[in-house]
Amino acid sequence: MQLLLLSNSTLPGEPFFQWPHAHAKSFLQGHKKVGFVPFAQPEPEQDAYVERMAAVFGEFGCETIGLHKATDPNKALDDLDAVAIGGGNSFLLLRSLYRSGLLRAIGDRVKRGLPYLGWSAGANVASPTIMTTNDMPIVEVPSLRAMHLVPFQINPHYTEATIPGHGGESRDKRLEEYLALNQRSTVVGLREGALLQVAIGRMELKGTGMVIFRAGKPKVDISGDAEMRRDLSDL
Amino acid sequence: MQLLLLSNSTLPGEPFFQWPHAHAKSFLQGHKKVGFVPFAQPEPEQDAYVERMAAVFGEFGCETIGLHKATDPNKALDDLDAVAIGGGNSFLLLRSLYRSGLLRAIGDRVKRGLPYLGWSAGANVASPTIMTTNDMPIVEVPSLRAMHLVPFQINPHYTEATIPGHGGESRDKRLEEYLALNQRSTVVGLREGALLQVAIGRMELKGTGMVIFRAGKPKVDISGDAEMRRDLSDL
Repeated sequence: MQLLLLSNSTLPGEPFFQWPHAHAKSFLQGHKKVGFVPFAQPEPEQDAYVERMAAVFGEFGCETIGLHKATDPNKALDDLDAVAIGGGNSFLLLRSLYRSGLLRAIGDRVKRGLPYLGWSAGANVASPTIMTTNDMPIVEVPSLRAMHLVPFQINPHYTEATIPGHGGESRDKRLEEYLALNQRSTVVGLREGALLQVAIGRMELKGTGMVIFRAGKPKVDISGDAEMRRDLSDL
Repeated sequence: MQLLLLSNSTLPGEPFFQWPHAHAKSFLQGHKKVGFVPFAQPEPEQDAYVERMAAVFGEFGCETIGLHKATDPNKALDDLDAVAIGGGNSFLLLRSLYRSGLLRAIGDRVKRGLPYLGWSAGANVASPTIMTTNDMPIVEVPSLRAMHLVPFQINPHYTEATIPGHGGESRDKRLEEYLALNQRSTVVGLREGALLQVAIGRMELKGTGMVIFRAGKPKVDISGDAEMRRDLSDL
């Protein structure tokens, strides 16, 4: 598999898709046709999202094909050299991936080698489930199960910071609750400005860093640009 | 109906259940047996949660009965003078309410007059759905539909504040996404330290305040201790 999984597209105060630009370029360059899934945004905003990404991917020499209007999911993928799923709301994204048949179609192709780029909600759906999303459940989904491209759960936009003076739960507390109910799972809290690159069972962390959470164990903070030459099933 | 719906149990830096203490006291006092549902916490913590609330409700002269071990949900409620559902994770709570049969049993009784006290996740399940929870979807639920005791969606722990320097979505952005997909819905963002008291179609806001969100309309900020003498179906 070839995966590039980003915590987020854009850092606060920076132009759209600035920090991951060079990483996405070297991942996508040479791949002529990139299918883009804008399902994490509400329907009226999907065309604009495809256009926005077409401008970015165009700088890499890629042609962008919006997959949101595909009537035959498998046929739509036949022609593509890579696929990307953008951020927004993970529940909305997953519902549309189920409805369109793209969940299985993309998952199957990516497992057979089609390069996959995903960020935020698009990184959530690369996990076994979307149970570690930060998003509000604004629509019903048939199941929380997702593409399971990696054997661990990604929590995008990971931060240990909280809102000053606010009593709502911290991210760490939420993930602790997740692990209490899903004790055999591993969570990778991917900090904003961090990505995981996976190629043939080897995984590299680039950018700011990540934190690994397991039930009953202390969390492990890993700073960016660590290369993890290990079988992914370790995680 | 008699409802007391709290945003939260405890303000940062204050002892447990301090701010709503007097409100809960005047709501529950005179009701001998209070059934308490600790399902929003993981199973190993439920007994302790019941004990903790028994200490609080005991100060009001109420006896507390943990409903988490009830085998016959309707029978368990026969004996009660009030019911309360505490906070934690809304998905975990809703799953157990479905599994135990308490969702329907409590909903039916409360609609026929049994006083209901709920906070945080316990206020989420008083809404038509839990779609406006802030919680992580750490377990699958049969449906997001909840007790529908009020005709609007509560967002507990409401704040417009964000984590400084963090690019994750603000609460307002999340609620805007919810309304984009659920345009006929109304959301009440209940600030920490605020509650809604409902009695026979009349609703009072007490404490800090709330913000009302509707699709395509500017949000309406209402400060505490406003009495809304209006039919609840207005919201």
